[in-house]
Amino acid sequence: MTHLKGKDILHGNQFSKKDIEAIIKTASNIEKELKKKDALTLLKGKILATLFFEPSTRTRLSFETAIQRLGGGVISLGAVESSSVAKGETLTDTVRTVSQYADVIVIRHPRTGSAKEAADAVSIPVINAGDGTGQHPTQALLDIYTIYKELGPLKNLVVSMVGDLKNGRTVHALVEILSLFQTRLYFVSPSNLRMPEEITSHLKEKGIGIVETRDMMEGALASDVLYMTRIQKERFTDLSEYEKLKGSYIINKEFLSKLKKRVSILHPLPRVDEITPEVDIYPGAAYFRQVRNGVFVRMALLALVLGKIP
Amino acid sequence: MTHLKGKDILHGNQFSKKDIEAIIKTASNIEKELKKKDALTLLKGKILATLFFEPSTRTRLSFETAIQRLGGGVISLGAVESSSVAKGETLTDTVRTVSQYADVIVIRHPRTGSAKEAADAVSIPVINAGDGTGQHPTQALLDIYTIYKELGPLKNLVVSMVGDLKNGRTVHALVEILSLFQTRLYFVSPSNLRMPEEITSHLKEKGIGIVETRDMMEGALASDVLYMTRIQKERFTDLSEYEKLKGSYIINKEFLSKLKKRVSILHPLPRVDEITPEVDIYPGAAYFRQVRNGVFVRMALLALVLGKIP
Amino acid sequence: MTHLKGKDILHGNQFSKKDIEAIIKTASNIEKELKKKDALTLLKGKILATLFFEPSTRTRLSFETAIQRLGGGVISLGAVESSSVAKGETLTDTVRTVSQYADVIVIRHPRTGSAKEAADAVSIPVINAGDGTGQHPTQALLDIYTIYKELGPLKNLVVSMVGDLKNGRTVHALVEILSLFQTRLYFVSPSNLRMPEEITSHLKEKGIGIVETRDMMEGALASDVLYMTRIQKERFTDLSEYEKLKGSYIINKEFLSKLKKRVSILHPLPRVDEITPEVDIYPGAAYFRQVRNGVFVRMALLALVLGKIP
Repeated sequence: MTHLKGKDILHGNQFSKKDIEAIIKTASNIEKELKKKDALTLLKGKILATLFFEPSTRTRLSFETAIQRLGGGVISLGAVESSSVAKGETLTDTVRTVSQYADVIVIRHPRTGSAKEAADAVSIPVINAGDGTGQHPTQALLDIYTIYKELGPLKNLVVSMVGDLKNGRTVHALVEILSLFQTRLYFVSPSNLRMPEEITSHLKEKGIGIVETRDMMEGALASDVLYMTRIQKERFTDLSEYEKLKGSYIINKEFLSKLKKRVSILHPLPRVDEITPEVDIYPGAAYFRQVRNGVFVRMALLALVLGKIP
Repeated sequence: MTHLKGKDILHGNQFSKKDIEAIIKTASNIEKELKKKDALTLLKGKILATLFFEPSTRTRLSFETAIQRLGGGVISLGAVESSSVAKGETLTDTVRTVSQYADVIVIRHPRTGSAKEAADAVSIPVINAGDGTGQHPTQALLDIYTIYKELGPLKNLVVSMVGDLKNGRTVHALVEILSLFQTRLYFVSPSNLRMPEEITSHLKEKGIGIVETRDMMEGALASDVLYMTRIQKERFTDLSEYEKLKGSYIINKEFLSKLKKRVSILHPLPRVDEITPEVDIYPGAAYFRQVRNGVFVRMALLALVLGKIP
Repeated sequence: MTHLKGKDILHGNQFSKKDIEAIIKTASNIEKELKKKDALTLLKGKILATLFFEPSTRTRLSFETAIQRLGGGVISLGAVESSSVAKGETLTDTVRTVSQYADVIVIRHPRTGSAKEAADAVSIPVINAGDGTGQHPTQALLDIYTIYKELGPLKNLVVSMVGDLKNGRTVHALVEILSLFQTRLYFVSPSNLRMPEEITSHLKEKGIGIVETRDMMEGALASDVLYMTRIQKERFTDLSEYEKLKGSYIINKEFLSKLKKRVSILHPLPRVDEITPEVDIYPGAAYFRQVRNGVFVRMALLALVLGKIP
């Protein structure tokens, strides 16, 4: 069905449409299985190593949940240790050592390209959980799975991405995958945080419809999905520009009241001010369901790269 | 038998006499089962999340042992992470996120009322492992189970509580539970560390016999149980008062020699000077057995709130 | 076969030749089993506690892998916690508490003799994972197992130990064990980092052939095994001495080209400059296989001390 057995998960652009469909189907099957049974044992005896050279608590806990819900075990570099390990030896030696213990490695590292470097050094699968300003493909996969679950088959959808589109590695990986499904895209951002030119031109080449705007409501009214991200104050040189903009990228009750139809609201979390707590009860507020979907997607990925899905 | 399925464990006063008896019976059954079998699987496939926003190594290890001895798994916020997680987002968002991964949450937090706040935010059971100067109900439950195991049926017992009765959240929760069993109580403390008035008056209303004294021997001679706590130097404004008192709340060989019968000595640990190491071989020295009992009680609680005890 | 059931693993000199043979045989059997099956369950329901009062990531991860690959679980003192735990109470009280949770304890502590002290305080087996300048016996056991796997039956071998032989606790434990098998030894070191006199004289009494030299090539040409260790700059008072010597204890491609036969190269890792990355593809480069062997040896030890090997 797919050829992910033994593969590394490094970049949003590594997946074919068939790969994405296989991952979605596997995640969906696992989710159904878990409803029927207390415990799955597909990865019994397998060990996942989590190497987080910078903290990402959610992603780590999500993977540690995923492997355990499939019957496997975990070994983890602690936050303090990861710095001292990194000090004394090369990343290559560290991951080669860990690959003697584990069956699969999840790595988070502040340096772009480090996940690829790790993957090249070892024979077991390596999953990139964020490398600097590079990629974070499993986040994009859980986003896609969430869109699939909220809205059904992935075609002819309109997705607005809102906020810091320049630095957000999640949205970069996500558009790669959405582009496989002829999604139309609204990029909503301040002018200094626009989606990088190489991405938009690449999407245009593939025939993907793109609208760039600073007006979140314009995107929202046209969209099935609003994908929110944080705008960080420190990205602005002109603070008055920040003050002016920040209010326009906040979803609250008043904003919801202007929507014409139910829109699915996603957010990679943690949120700061972008979505007020009153929105949490809105039926389209999918961001906590998105967290849960992340576990199923990571269970699927672990099972696939370890060759346990026929 | 009991209605703890799906419930939170937040406060010593939430339990009826029947609840306590059910918890003791369940813990006792589990303890017997563990003697017969190497491994239990009652909670196979279940995930416990431990969220310790302040360190409490014993309590964390006790819960992590409990879930694993029932076949379940653990995810944990690390000490370093818990501070950074807490920084960026509300406690509510953090626990709602974690509730997407886990089946039950154990939380320790420096703020009184935080465990209740966490419990209100999620649909899975939350167990309070200490919230500020608030409660620490599982410690009180393991104390009760220890008293039951050391002395048999919980009625007509006399218990002395010794030390800092003003600030000790453990003793506050414990007296709530002991009061269900018509226990007579000696409160032994310096005058500035007496049991709070609202607790003593509440106990008197319920018809519980109370003696307040500064003399530990008076309590010890009348009691079946001596429950020791630490007296912390920093609680005293008058250090000469501290120096005078600290010697009178130390159990050593000489003190034991004056007892007329075997008394069960409990302590929530860690001890500092309150009990000298020579006391460890005294048959009534129950404080390390108490640690072990904590695992059985937490196994029982996890199984009960997860609905696995019929 | 062996009498390790219920025993502590504290010191390289505690093992008879029969013990070593039993450990090697058990490790070898477990390694073969793991190739046939995804998951072993020999230690299902058992809990290992790792107490690392100083960091040793490799050793901790190796043990945590070992217990989980046998179906057991782990509880761990975190790096931050271990310091705070150590502060408030005696080591004896800490390990006695932990022994109420776990079935076996692995301890690493900066103070020589602390592992013995811990073992004397509790009734469950304690494994020393390094105590100050004392011992680190499981490293020596995995070294022996690696030599066995690389070279076959342990007799009439010639082993060169290279580098800091004065401070290296690993080599001290290893020579104890090698001496049981009539190994001939080359000790290659700068003059200020020679093997301690009490060890060499003890070996000579036992009739072990020893050559001490500063010339690594002399040892290499005569040896079946080159056991490398780090030379730390800070050990030298005369830095010009350090600069002169450091080059002579580096294995690189040029050095390999002068060898007459394949030599097995071991290193406890992490390496700094002692072995250049180009050496990694040399067939005798055994140091990453050595890491993997460590898991099998620790699985064997855990199974043996817990009485699960008939």
